[in-house]
Amino acid sequence: MTDEEERKDVYAEALALHRAHHGKLAVQATVPLNTRKDIGRAYTPGVAAVCRELERDPSLAYTYTIKGNTVAVVTDGSAVLGLGNIGGTAAIPVMEGKAALFKRLAGIDAFPICFAEQSADIVGQIRNLAPVFGGINLEDIAAPRCFEIEEELQDLGIPVMHDDQHATAIVVLAALMNACTATGKRLEDLRIVVIGAGAAGFAITRLLRCIGYESRACRPVRELLVCDREGIIHRNRHGLYSNKYKFIIGEETNRAGRTGSIADALNGADVCIGVSGPGVVTEEMVRSMNRDPIVFAMANPVPEIMPDEAARAGAAVIGTGRSDFPNQINNVLVFPGFFRGALDARAIRVTDEMKLAAATALAATIRRPTRDRILPSVLNRGVVRAVAAAVREAAVASGAATAGTEEKVKRGGA
Amino acid sequence: MTDEEERKDVYAEALALHRAHHGKLAVQATVPLNTRKDIGRAYTPGVAAVCRELERDPSLAYTYTIKGNTVAVVTDGSAVLGLGNIGGTAAIPVMEGKAALFKRLAGIDAFPICFAEQSADIVGQIRNLAPVFGGINLEDIAAPRCFEIEEELQDLGIPVMHDDQHATAIVVLAALMNACTATGKRLEDLRIVVIGAGAAGFAITRLLRCIGYESRACRPVRELLVCDREGIIHRNRHGLYSNKYKFIIGEETNRAGRTGSIADALNGADVCIGVSGPGVVTEEMVRSMNRDPIVFAMANPVPEIMPDEAARAGAAVIGTGRSDFPNQINNVLVFPGFFRGALDARAIRVTDEMKLAAATALAATIRRPTRDRILPSVLNRGVVRAVAAAVREAAVASGAATAGTEEKVKRGGA
Repeated sequence: MTDEEERKDVYAEALALHRAHHGKLAVQATVPLNTRKDIGRAYTPGVAAVCRELERDPSLAYTYTIKGNTVAVVTDGSAVLGLGNIGGTAAIPVMEGKAALFKRLAGIDAFPICFAEQSADIVGQIRNLAPVFGGINLEDIAAPRCFEIEEELQDLGIPVMHDDQHATAIVVLAALMNACTATGKRLEDLRIVVIGAGAAGFAITRLLRCIGYESRACRPVRELLVCDREGIIHRNRHGLYSNKYKFIIGEETNRAGRTGSIADALNGADVCIGVSGPGVVTEEMVRSMNRDPIVFAMANPVPEIMPDEAARAGAAVIGTGRSDFPNQINNVLVFPGFFRGALDARAIRVTDEMKLAAATALAATIRRPTRDRILPSVLNRGVVRAVAAAVREAAVASGAATAGTEEKVKRGGA
Repeated sequence: MTDEEERKDVYAEALALHRAHHGKLAVQATVPLNTRKDIGRAYTPGVAAVCRELERDPSLAYTYTIKGNTVAVVTDGSAVLGLGNIGGTAAIPVMEGKAALFKRLAGIDAFPICFAEQSADIVGQIRNLAPVFGGINLEDIAAPRCFEIEEELQDLGIPVMHDDQHATAIVVLAALMNACTATGKRLEDLRIVVIGAGAAGFAITRLLRCIGYESRACRPVRELLVCDREGIIHRNRHGLYSNKYKFIIGEETNRAGRTGSIADALNGADVCIGVSGPGVVTEEMVRSMNRDPIVFAMANPVPEIMPDEAARAGAAVIGTGRSDFPNQINNVLVFPGFFRGALDARAIRVTDEMKLAAATALAATIRRPTRDRILPSVLNRGVVRAVAAAVREAAVASGAATAGTEEKVKRGGA
């Protein structure tokens, strides 16, 4: 079968599956409701006592309600997969799939919230529906709106994380750590080029910036450049201040003030991280990189450069977003464990320390990384456990946790 | 055990149950997620094909997503049980309980949405989160706001119903039908007094008004009076126009323009329907009613008149909201079957015909009503089936249904 035939096949199977099941989620009652007595305890009149306790102390929602294990998967459908702005209704299948994976991999009860109107005050609306949720997973929201929404919600008192940004950044960092091991490079010696300044590019950049700054575990990387369609972003670029997020990139990267094209940026670089579009990286560019170049080409479904081309050009480690090549860089490796750890710590926010810890723990699940194996399988159950434990500890260490260590809520997978 | 001891007991048991289970709901994946191939079908890349179909035709959400079997149980916590305005967080246990009953009794996947801010634009927010839901069950929202919210959402394209209003009204009408049979009275001969002009009182009044108007199945009741704290509502009452809903009551009831107190209203009446507060009806008032008076005293937990007092005063049929007396008038008898029928018809709104049909079907589940048995048990599975079938048919007959009869989605209980 050709690539395209295989894809058509999985599309047909996906449609059949969704049609047969009418979606992918069900809500279940977890308490008995077989007798009048059962109903009296779970509903009226008994439930009134629980309500009164919560009125007295709303934090008891973690004790008496589903809050502590429940995450909202929230989208406005403005940037869904590679499909673009298809809207909240068309995005439902992705959010259901995410919720299903949350349950299957981390035992988390997740429910899709798909907004119909993109012009609405999504920040206010998420605040308003937060009582029943212990965490908010933002999903498939277009840049720059996703930055603003996430930023404004950091005081909500529960972890709020935009998956497309941070789960991607975390898995990229984990992949990079193991790619370094496989090639004998050190993070602090790396010259890294990020291609793409959207949701993922911005988050990857900021997380790479944390190395050696927010965390003292190691020293900063040697050089970090970010390119958009116009080439290397530098702080003197005309009009940069009109985009707050590119302005931040201008301030926080490219200390040497380099200018030029993507090709200029990659010349002599150790790492190319593509989160842009198909075909923007050429064999020639890879050839111009430092010895043993690391190339993550994550545009989906068609990467910045195809793996066989990158290999031909001498790339030492090649990762993509696709499951049909080695080294799939997939944020499914991150979000279940990350939220499991954040919920178990009853974290009130997401800290950089939690992200760095998640990346480190994820990388450590591969005992001996090789060029063809820098990340584990998404079905490896140890991944969720390792990431969750690291995130929970980092939440405690960085002051974001509110759960006492003795009352750690441990819930297994489904 | 005394009443109070028993209540303390059920409160303690309810707290223990909620603590042990951390709430009452879980979200489950309904599709296999065990292999890479499974994930490829349920999530990326396969899910993209489903998204594209939905982008082309959003109504396919009923085919490919959970929408067709999913209901939001929405509250702002402004009027929870008899506890008053305790807010969205403290209301979570009630909404979870409702959702659990939806599943247990009608196989419906329901999820709680508990708003934190009562000053927010709840109508706009419900519109905005509607994509994933096939119906909206409004719950425990204070009058008059509940009327406005419900009214404004009737064009949403999915059934939206405020349970405290209409499920209560439907079960009252069913109880009344069977109380008539048990006492040999006819609806069209009844003089009915509704005490309380809040959410339930208004909805009961409007549904009783439908008899013989919206439906030609029978003739209107002989007299319908509504009392609030100031006595009988009449169209010439000073300042009535300042409350839209009492104004409507003034226009639509009390054709004779009677004035006076609750005692005046009940003098010679056949039916007393109390949805107000404890103790507002006296034995003397019941004695002043017509022969074989029907008394529904539904204030909770302490009724308008205690059943033993009402019996002493000669009441022929006595109903309350409590499970510890005969004839519990409980809206659990209505909402699961009502939404089952509305979802199966893929109703785009709730019509009076659907409500009347639900009441008639519910009444008919008791083959031979007696004074002590006018309603079935909430655990009787036939109730949901009967109500659902009647509501579905009425939705079709009243032009609210969009599902073809051949593609009736029949899902069993959980």
